[in-house]
Amino acid sequence: MHKEKEYEKYFSKIENGTITDVPEFFVQAVHSGVRKSRKDDLSLIYTPLDTVTSAVFTTNKFAAAPVIINKRQLSGSRNIKAIVINTGIANACTGEQGIINAEKIVEETAGYLKLGKKNVAIASTGLIGKQLPLEKILGGIRELSKTISSGDGHRAARSILTIDKNPKELAVKINTEKFFNMEKDIIVGAIGKGSIMVAPNMGTILCFIATNVKIHQNLLDGLLHEGVDQSFNSISIDGCQSTNDMVFIQNNGESGIEITKDNRELYDVFRHTLFFVLEEMAKKVILDGEGASKFVEIEVRSSRDKAEAKKIGMKIANSILVKASIFGETINWGRIASAIGSTDVEFNINDVEIFINDFLIFKNGMEVSENMEPALPTMKNKHINIKVIMHTGRQSSFVWTTDLTHDFVKASSHYRS
Amino acid sequence: MHKEKEYEKYFSKIENGTITDVPEFFVQAVHSGVRKSRKDDLSLIYTPLDTVTSAVFTTNKFAAAPVIINKRQLSGSRNIKAIVINTGIANACTGEQGIINAEKIVEETAGYLKLGKKNVAIASTGLIGKQLPLEKILGGIRELSKTISSGDGHRAARSILTIDKNPKELAVKINTEKFFNMEKDIIVGAIGKGSIMVAPNMGTILCFIATNVKIHQNLLDGLLHEGVDQSFNSISIDGCQSTNDMVFIQNNGESGIEITKDNRELYDVFRHTLFFVLEEMAKKVILDGEGASKFVEIEVRSSRDKAEAKKIGMKIANSILVKASIFGETINWGRIASAIGSTDVEFNINDVEIFINDFLIFKNGMEVSENMEPALPTMKNKHINIKVIMHTGRQSSFVWTTDLTHDFVKASSHYRS
Repeated sequence: MHKEKEYEKYFSKIENGTITDVPEFFVQAVHSGVRKSRKDDLSLIYTPLDTVTSAVFTTNKFAAAPVIINKRQLSGSRNIKAIVINTGIANACTGEQGIINAEKIVEETAGYLKLGKKNVAIASTGLIGKQLPLEKILGGIRELSKTISSGDGHRAARSILTIDKNPKELAVKINTEKFFNMEKDIIVGAIGKGSIMVAPNMGTILCFIATNVKIHQNLLDGLLHEGVDQSFNSISIDGCQSTNDMVFIQNNGESGIEITKDNRELYDVFRHTLFFVLEEMAKKVILDGEGASKFVEIEVRSSRDKAEAKKIGMKIANSILVKASIFGETINWGRIASAIGSTDVEFNINDVEIFINDFLIFKNGMEVSENMEPALPTMKNKHINIKVIMHTGRQSSFVWTTDLTHDFVKASSHYRS
Repeated sequence: MHKEKEYEKYFSKIENGTITDVPEFFVQAVHSGVRKSRKDDLSLIYTPLDTVTSAVFTTNKFAAAPVIINKRQLSGSRNIKAIVINTGIANACTGEQGIINAEKIVEETAGYLKLGKKNVAIASTGLIGKQLPLEKILGGIRELSKTISSGDGHRAARSILTIDKNPKELAVKINTEKFFNMEKDIIVGAIGKGSIMVAPNMGTILCFIATNVKIHQNLLDGLLHEGVDQSFNSISIDGCQSTNDMVFIQNNGESGIEITKDNRELYDVFRHTLFFVLEEMAKKVILDGEGASKFVEIEVRSSRDKAEAKKIGMKIANSILVKASIFGETINWGRIASAIGSTDVEFNINDVEIFINDFLIFKNGMEVSENMEPALPTMKNKHINIKVIMHTGRQSSFVWTTDLTHDFVKASSHYRS
């Protein structure tokens, strides 16, 4: 993490970029009628080229029907050319009917786009427990299949939002022409949604990434898992796990450039570019977190291993007392200490150092009192940094979170019919 | 749990009862100056008789100095005759100086009361990270040692509060004269504090129980652990673990009645009376939870084992989205399902049933829609019951919690200097 910086000379953000900046990716949205308002609620990501696709999914045992269906699809074929996404209803906890509906959407989408059933994946976000209005969705898919070639990435990025305030989209160009003397540039584009699992409708993380490279599925799987672990799996707003989370990456090979470990330099650049995109998308979720007033970065250093570092980071991130004190702009380091101490990680309390916004606040089992007064004004910053040094090893991990605000309680308590 | 009801004919609450209703227990409070306000901040629990004492402590690795000292004391002797409790400063994260201060308090208390050092225990509650004002506390102990015989349990119950709104105290009489034809009655009395680890000063759970029975320490240890597991270890307001929690039980033998398993009936009555007292004290903490507007009981039934049932109950209790939706008086059962699904417990989602206020809301992997409308008005109740039936076994467990309110955020965000 943060090592991306040294690779940043190789790539640049495309201004006002989105997923359709990736060649031969077409994305469109429409209002099908799942949502009562006239907002778009159905979108389609489509490439006519063959792809190598990877995905990661929520581990929640109440996984939604699209999660179940997609796992089955990807175990059969990685050539996903179309992803249908509906907003408004999550198709989670919907029993056998939910599965039947999801299968029907796959089948009809394949029909309209003249694809095999194996080439289609689906995603849903919205209220848990309601059945999808199948006819409305199928009508929407028919419409999308006709207009897809004149697609609009920005419109689709907006259509997949539930209570998110801002669209989450991004495109990055790897300057492969210049740095690697290749014919085309590599583009990585993404759209996503989520203010984590918050009301009204169990907003979840969905993220769809497209690239124009060729890559072997094993290499891609490894990269996606590593990248998601350092991005979407390192954020928490409310500590609640969604039933619908998924992150997709589709590679349609349009550039003709193959990513392999044989070309190590290109591989490293691609890897760090992809991690940059995942990290940016994850941060966009945090910055849009329900009711959030601050972006909080928790860094756990010198830990025995990465998993321990992350466990401590997540415990701090999910402590509602730590979050509330950050909202209150006070330095309640005791709450951070007690969060660390409540994990099952072994350490000596006299070794632990806690920094807040670069002020050393806790050392040798005690407060560093002379730093309290100068540190206090920095709690008014929008970006708060908590750094914990464990002195048990050499590994480190980051977690990003938000504060706990009145607006969070207001929003998350009053939704749902 | 709840089996206490069948034993309730044997015991009765003493009206306006407190810990000093137990014969030969003297308890007094005083203002020593730890707190800036003129509130009492130091109290002493004392019995001139020999005791058998058990205690349980927080497992937080940043355990406060009194926790460390008391563990040492109890491993040496179970004859604790005096417990000194200060409010205002937790003596947690105070390094070597904190231990030295705690030892000095033990030593001086023993001196003033003409006890051995081994007969004294201590407790602190308040702000983490500050050193105790030792001279003020020693002055207070001197004063307490002079006035202890005219003690006032109610005053002491108030003195140990931090941000709690209400004192937590109770005395129960087992009618051993009537039911067991004995000379004296058994009295179980308690004082306690806590709105869990919430601001301003890391309020913690402290609970001190006194009885006038004789009992072997092994039997007592077992009873206390079992009882605490079903009471204080089954509540959560904010999911944050304190550095200072402790529950003490002292038995001074005044009644001459010995509790053994040989007299099974008396043993069972004593056991259930003690569990009743622990449960009542734990519920008093929940009812006084920071900003709480509702008492929430989560019952997990038909689980593989008690630990799994409790893990699921705690996950629901600590879901800030579940808590917020209860505050909002909505039925967001999807949040309950996703909390259950995010544990590592194995189950089939089609087996799980979720009841809210006795309405079956989720069954066969789907919402029971016809119950949603009639159930909704019951969300306005002060007491909310969530019942989850897992159908994986025969064990069950209870957890008690609160909702998440605007007042919680207000209180927990703005405290501390």
